[in-house]
Amino acid sequence: MPNPSLLILPGDGIGPEVMAEVRKVIDWFAAERGLAFDVSEDLVGGAAYDAHGTPLTDETMDLAQLADAVLLGAVGGPKYDDLDFSVKPERGLLRLRKEMDLFANLRPAQCFDALADFSSLKREIVAGLDIMIVRELTSGIYFGEPRGISDDGRGGRVGINTQRYTTDEIRRVARSAFELARRRQNRVCSMEKANVMESGILWREEVQWVHDNEYPDVALSHMYADAGAMQLVRKPNQFDVIVTDNLFGDILSDAAAMLTGSLGMLPSASLGAPMANGRPKALYEPVHGSAPDIAGQGKANPIACILSLAMALRYSFDRGDDAALLEGAVERVLADGVRTVDLLGDATTRAATTSEMGDAIVAAL
Amino acid sequence: MPNPSLLILPGDGIGPEVMAEVRKVIDWFAAERGLAFDVSEDLVGGAAYDAHGTPLTDETMDLAQLADAVLLGAVGGPKYDDLDFSVKPERGLLRLRKEMDLFANLRPAQCFDALADFSSLKREIVAGLDIMIVRELTSGIYFGEPRGISDDGRGGRVGINTQRYTTDEIRRVARSAFELARRRQNRVCSMEKANVMESGILWREEVQWVHDNEYPDVALSHMYADAGAMQLVRKPNQFDVIVTDNLFGDILSDAAAMLTGSLGMLPSASLGAPMANGRPKALYEPVHGSAPDIAGQGKANPIACILSLAMALRYSFDRGDDAALLEGAVERVLADGVRTVDLLGDATTRAATTSEMGDAIVAAL
Ligand SMILES: CC(C)[C@H](C(=O)O)[C@@H](O)C(=O)O
Ligand SMILES: CC(C)[C@H](C(=O)O)[C@@H](O)C(=O)O
Repeated sequence: MPNPSLLILPGDGIGPEVMAEVRKVIDWFAAERGLAFDVSEDLVGGAAYDAHGTPLTDETMDLAQLADAVLLGAVGGPKYDDLDFSVKPERGLLRLRKEMDLFANLRPAQCFDALADFSSLKREIVAGLDIMIVRELTSGIYFGEPRGISDDGRGGRVGINTQRYTTDEIRRVARSAFELARRRQNRVCSMEKANVMESGILWREEVQWVHDNEYPDVALSHMYADAGAMQLVRKPNQFDVIVTDNLFGDILSDAAAMLTGSLGMLPSASLGAPMANGRPKALYEPVHGSAPDIAGQGKANPIACILSLAMALRYSFDRGDDAALLEGAVERVLADGVRTVDLLGDATTRAATTSEMGDAIVAAL
Repeated sequence: MPNPSLLILPGDGIGPEVMAEVRKVIDWFAAERGLAFDVSEDLVGGAAYDAHGTPLTDETMDLAQLADAVLLGAVGGPKYDDLDFSVKPERGLLRLRKEMDLFANLRPAQCFDALADFSSLKREIVAGLDIMIVRELTSGIYFGEPRGISDDGRGGRVGINTQRYTTDEIRRVARSAFELARRRQNRVCSMEKANVMESGILWREEVQWVHDNEYPDVALSHMYADAGAMQLVRKPNQFDVIVTDNLFGDILSDAAAMLTGSLGMLPSASLGAPMANGRPKALYEPVHGSAPDIAGQGKANPIACILSLAMALRYSFDRGDDAALLEGAVERVLADGVRTVDLLGDATTRAATTSEMGDAIVAAL
C-alpha cells in the first residue's frame, strides 16, 4: 500500500513558520511510529496570488482533491486588502472548502488548564471547558446566489447575498454533530434564528428530523443564535456539541475560541464525504489567522497548527492513539512552562521562539 | 401645546409587570417635573395574538405611527412556539420596526459598577465598560426578498433568506453612529464580513464614504464581524461606538450585553427619521426578553425598562437632564444595595420584588 498523502499549504503570514514546526512533528512520526506520509507542498492565498495571480491554481486544487488530507496554515494580510474580491486570499480557502465539499467544520473550543488565566473570563467559568462547534462550511450565505453589487436605479448601489440551505445540506452536517456527540457527552445544541428567518425554520426542522429518526438517543436542544452568543459568554460549559450554519458558526466559534484564552492553541478540521479509500475528504487548519503583524519574527505559536495535525491523525488516519500522544506532548510542554510570547502574560521568563516550541514538542514526544 | 404622547405596549411574559413600574416613574415625572404625557396602552406580541389573532393590529400600528414615543416591554414565549411564522409574537415587533422605519437601534452595553462582579468576565476587563452598539434595524436579512421555504424539486426542501442593503440604508445608519460618536469618544468601528460577502463590501465602502465626506473628524475603523466577536470578548473597552447590520448587530449586541453582567439593566432605543414636530419616530425597549419562566412572580428586574424611559427622555423629548436624574436614581438604589433576585448572586439578603424596586427608584427620585 502506498503511503497516505499529505498536501501542505502554508499560505500567508505566520503560516509558513508554524508549518515548518509541523514538519518536524511529521518527521518524528515517520521515524518513530512508522507513520510515513507522502508530503507535498504548494501555495494558497496571497502567496499563490503573488506567484500566479490567483489565490488557488487549478493544479493545486487537483492536488487537494487527490490528497488524503490537506494541512493549511493561514491566508490573508493587509497587503491584499485592495485586491478585487474574486482574487482575495480568502477565495482560495473558500474554493478548497467548496470544491472538496467539506461541509462539516469541527472547531473544538478547549481551555488548556495551564492557560486558563489568559482568558478574559473568570477561571471558574472556563476551566476545563471543552465544546465542539460543528459549523456548516459549504453553503449558506457564503455561497448562495444571487450575490453581488449593482446599481439600485436611484443613483446608489445595492449589495446582495443569499442565505440558502437545503434539506440534504442541513441533514448531513447534523449527522456529523450527532456522531460526534455520541463519542462525547451525547448532547447537541442547534443554533439559528428561526424566529426571523425561514432558512432558520428549515434548519431547526431538519435537525429535529435527523434527531428523531436517526439519533433519538442524543439529547437535542435548540437556541436562537443571539441567545447562543449570550449563553456562550455566560456559562459556556453548559454546551457539549453545537451545530450551526456557516455564518453563525463563523462568529460563534470565534467568540468561543476567544473565551478559552487559548486562541493560539486551537485546531480545526473540515471534513467532507468519504473517498474511495474510506477516508473523508479533509482539510486541517488552525483557528487563528495569518497574524501578519508578527510574521517572520519567530514569535508565532505553532501549537494550533501542530494540534491540527493531531486532528488529522484522528479523523483522517484513524490513529487516535497517535493523536493522543501528540496532544499529550503539547500538554507536557505547556506544563513544563515552555511559552511562546503569546502565552507569556506577565511572566518574566524568556519566550520560546516558534522553532524552540516545535523542538520542545518533538522532544516531549 | 398638547402633551407629548406615549404609547405603552407591555407585551408578553414579564413585560406587563416591568411596565407597571415604569408607569410609577412616569407619574412621578408628571407630578414633580411638569412632564406630563398622554399615555395610552395597547397589545403587542402573543398578548395581541390571543386577543385578536394577530401579533399587531392595524389599529395599534396606527397608534404607534402617531405616538411621540412607543415604550415596549417584551414579546414571545413558549406558548407561541408552534404558531405559524406569520403570526408569531416577534412579527408584531418586526412590523413596528419596519413600518415606523426605525433604522437605528441604539444598544448601550454598560457595566454598572455595583454589578461588575456579576459578569462572567474578570472585573478589570469589564469595569467601567461603556460601548454603544448601533444596529441597522429595518433591512438586511430580516426583511430581504426573496424568502421562504419551498420544494427543492428533489424530494427535499430549500429555505431562503436574502441579505440586501442599499447605499441609502447604510449611509443613514452610519450617520447615526457618527453623530453619537461625536458626543462620546469620537470613535466608530464598523463590522461586516467584507471578506466573504458583497453586501459587506458595500457596507464598508458606504460607511467609509460617509466618514470621508461628512465626519472626517471621527476616527473610523473596520473589523470583520468574527474578529469583532473575538475582540468584544478579549478587550471590550477598546470600543466606543460600533455600527453594524441587522443580523450581526443582533448577535454582537447580545454578546456585548452579557459581557457587562448587567443584562437586566440594559435599555435600547430604536430611532427613525424626524417627524413633523422634529422628534424622531422612536421605540424604546429593554434588551432582555419576555422571560416567561419568571413571569407573574414579582421577580423581574424593572430597571432595563425604566432606563428605556430614560433613553426616551433623552432622545425623543430632549430632556437629557431628566434622563440623567432617572439614571442617577437607579445608580443610587443599586449603591444602597436594593437587589431584585437576578442581582443577588451569592448574597443572602432578601430580594426586592419588581414592585419594591420600582418604588425604591421613585423614592430615590
Ligand atoms: C478567512 C475567512 C474567509 C474565514 C471565514 O469567514 O470562514 C475565517 O474567518 C474562518 O472562520 O475560517
Ligand atoms: C425578538 C427578535 C425578533 C429580536 C431580533 O432578532 O431582532 C430580538 O432578538 C432583538 O434583538 O430585539
